[in-house]
Amino acid sequence: MVEQQQNKNEELYNVEELRQYLLEGNIESFRESFLELHPYDQAQFYEKVGPDIRKTIYQFLSPQEMALIFEAIELEDEEYEQFLKEMDTVYGAEMLSYMYTDDAVDVLNELDDEHRESYLEIMDSETVEEINELLAYEEYTAGAIMTKEYVSILENSTVRSAMTVLRNEAPNAETIYYVFVVDENHCLTGVISLRDLIISDEDTLIKDIMNERVVYVKVSDDQEDIAQIMKDYNFLAIPVVNESNKLIGIITVDDIIDVIDEEASDDYSKLAGVTDIDDIEASPFKAATKRLPWLIMLLFLGMITATLMGQFEETLDKVALLALFIPLISGTSGNSGTQALAVAVRGIATGEIDEKSKMKMLLREVLTGLITGIVCGLIVVGIIFVWKHTLVVGLLVGAAISCSILVATIAGSFIPLLIHKLGVDPAVASGPFITTLNDVTSILIYLGLATTFLGQLS
Amino acid sequence: MVEQQQNKNEELYNVEELRQYLLEGNIESFRESFLELHPYDQAQFYEKVGPDIRKTIYQFLSPQEMALIFEAIELEDEEYEQFLKEMDTVYGAEMLSYMYTDDAVDVLNELDDEHRESYLEIMDSETVEEINELLAYEEYTAGAIMTKEYVSILENSTVRSAMTVLRNEAPNAETIYYVFVVDENHCLTGVISLRDLIISDEDTLIKDIMNERVVYVKVSDDQEDIAQIMKDYNFLAIPVVNESNKLIGIITVDDIIDVIDEEASDDYSKLAGVTDIDDIEASPFKAATKRLPWLIMLLFLGMITATLMGQFEETLDKVALLALFIPLISGTSGNSGTQALAVAVRGIATGEIDEKSKMKMLLREVLTGLITGIVCGLIVVGIIFVWKHTLVVGLLVGAAISCSILVATIAGSFIPLLIHKLGVDPAVASGPFITTLNDVTSILIYLGLATTFLGQLS
Repeated sequence: MVEQQQNKNEELYNVEELRQYLLEGNIESFRESFLELHPYDQAQFYEKVGPDIRKTIYQFLSPQEMALIFEAIELEDEEYEQFLKEMDTVYGAEMLSYMYTDDAVDVLNELDDEHRESYLEIMDSETVEEINELLAYEEYTAGAIMTKEYVSILENSTVRSAMTVLRNEAPNAETIYYVFVVDENHCLTGVISLRDLIISDEDTLIKDIMNERVVYVKVSDDQEDIAQIMKDYNFLAIPVVNESNKLIGIITVDDIIDVIDEEASDDYSKLAGVTDIDDIEASPFKAATKRLPWLIMLLFLGMITATLMGQFEETLDKVALLALFIPLISGTSGNSGTQALAVAVRGIATGEIDEKSKMKMLLREVLTGLITGIVCGLIVVGIIFVWKHTLVVGLLVGAAISCSILVATIAGSFIPLLIHKLGVDPAVASGPFITTLNDVTSILIYLGLATTFLGQLS
Repeated sequence: MVEQQQNKNEELYNVEELRQYLLEGNIESFRESFLELHPYDQAQFYEKVGPDIRKTIYQFLSPQEMALIFEAIELEDEEYEQFLKEMDTVYGAEMLSYMYTDDAVDVLNELDDEHRESYLEIMDSETVEEINELLAYEEYTAGAIMTKEYVSILENSTVRSAMTVLRNEAPNAETIYYVFVVDENHCLTGVISLRDLIISDEDTLIKDIMNERVVYVKVSDDQEDIAQIMKDYNFLAIPVVNESNKLIGIITVDDIIDVIDEEASDDYSKLAGVTDIDDIEASPFKAATKRLPWLIMLLFLGMITATLMGQFEETLDKVALLALFIPLISGTSGNSGTQALAVAVRGIATGEIDEKSKMKMLLREVLTGLITGIVCGLIVVGIIFVWKHTLVVGLLVGAAISCSILVATIAGSFIPLLIHKLGVDPAVASGPFITTLNDVTSILIYLGLATTFLGQLS
């Protein structure tokens, strides 16, 4: 697939040719070839050519044309600042005002205050007002990802006038496939799809054919919950209302895809104990800085394990054989804890685990822990008996593994539920954290049992 | 948010009232209230009422109305079979033929061969042909997720005739927001959006306004690659062509969202060592069955660790203090390996790591491993010196931790790249697997160093 796509892109446009036009200053040929491309391909080219050639692009394209590229581009956070600094401030400000408000806000959010102000000072007051409104919303809420470019009409309009509004708004609106219906106070009262509009008689009143059971979100709603609703209902866009039910924006499916991606990466990276997964382009120093806090925190936790084990130094001194199974026991308990954790964190994130199903799930995990613990314990007794011909050590290790798996499975599901209850994202109970905690308990169980039955061992 | 949504749903429909209508056999009131709901809400109600009440629903709703519910429903794999068995076979077959082909195929895929055949025998031959075509495509390819319900027109049509086609197809097509343009051989030549159609003059020829640079995918392309393209280009739908460039289907954004979700869950569950994360509703036995293969495999790997450690029993026997730091060292190396693994697997999945950037990434990881290793090593030397007042053991443990982190970081990034190169999904190099491998190497490094410098220790 990737290959086919690359070949296709080569057919679609010739990078070298475009670059040549820019170097030669051949504005006409460049515009002719370049403006035919999909904004995403334009953005790919723009991003890769380097700052010198980009300077020529700014001369060859209008701020409005550049706005399309910036809507399609996907940059590292700090690159937005860098790319904008290459442009003339007036050109940049004009480009930003041509962008959809939500995309412009995303870019402006990456700039330092002073740099951002320099643009807002030049832009026209209406746009600045819209942008400031969005900038004020908290991150990860509906307000922060919504756009102001939607199509709305009054309930008493006809299909004909709705189509006229649509045609006029088509070049600017982010989606024209839903028209949102409002009353004279701009309160949301319904929705109608373009699909329904084109099959309706032109003289029909909107309020007679609109869907009154419109699903909406509030401006302060969490983006993850909104993603869930749009996934469930298969919406292409969802309206956003304020506290007084006034329509103030919409969220489109493309932004929701980004949210889903982001949240999944987020859960994933937390399970792995890295604060930010997207550091493939980062320098080794930056990568190390991101990973070290976790590693060091876990080092200290590991030291606690060592301290606690110190209590059993005497036992270990007497039966060195015991030490051989420490990695096995802590590893197995860590693994089963991570499994339970993953199921719980994912279940909470997708909303499948709620207040009602919580106890049921905990009980389920207790039983699962019992079953997996007993099975693994028996296997271990068998292996050690065959290998070391000792039943006592085998039984000891088997019992320790069974207990550890049970405890780890319960901890892996209970801790995220507890953290969630406290209002914190359960993904912070990350994999390495649970693993290290389970290390401690499993080794305590093991060496505790060993010390108790020390007489039988030697 | 969730609360608001629940309140809203209560406003939207009264579950008890609907249930009452069904129990009373009040078909008119039920249909009036129920058919007003969004199919997703209908599906939620349908799914929850239980088999007895569902039997009444089948009497009250036509197969066509039931088809909408089945398109919106999200069930566990085995529940499809169970729900279909509640219906009359003819009713079920008719419902399946009213569904979008891709959704019908998803349902049919969950049935056993005999059960599936019983439906295909009754359905009309045209639908069966389409269904069989889709059933034949390999899972996770474009063919398996595409739908046949798209709108296509000939290049030489006018905007007016295109709009007429759209109006006629609107009730059946999965999306009418893109019209795909084909030549007389049904080869794909362009695309035009409904947005462009409604702002164009009615007498314009389609070929004059269509976008000829249409991005398409091949029927055998992998669904993850397609998701990437749709994300990049923000498409609502993408056309699928066969080997001879004939248009044979489309993939819509709602299916792509499911793919993104599925793939993210997949990577996540593999990192945690569970084959299938969605087992919140599963019984403890089923959950245990899913987790045990991993746990047992890792038990055997852990036994290898124990065997290798057996080589150093003498060293451990002499200096029991050494055993205290085994969990610390293996834990830290496991953690840093998982971090590197997560970055690599995610990078490969999102396409950010390709042939070119591979070596750069490996080099980056080597340096990151060096930095994190040295920092953690120094911290450990410090802690052990303060705690145990021994520099020798501290240096030994510190050196072992530094080496282990370096090796684990390299392994965590190199192994997924290697597996990917061999054409296997890199996520199979899951967290617990890498962790256990790193256990082995880190302990070998530690006890190897300890045995070498044994003279200094005692």
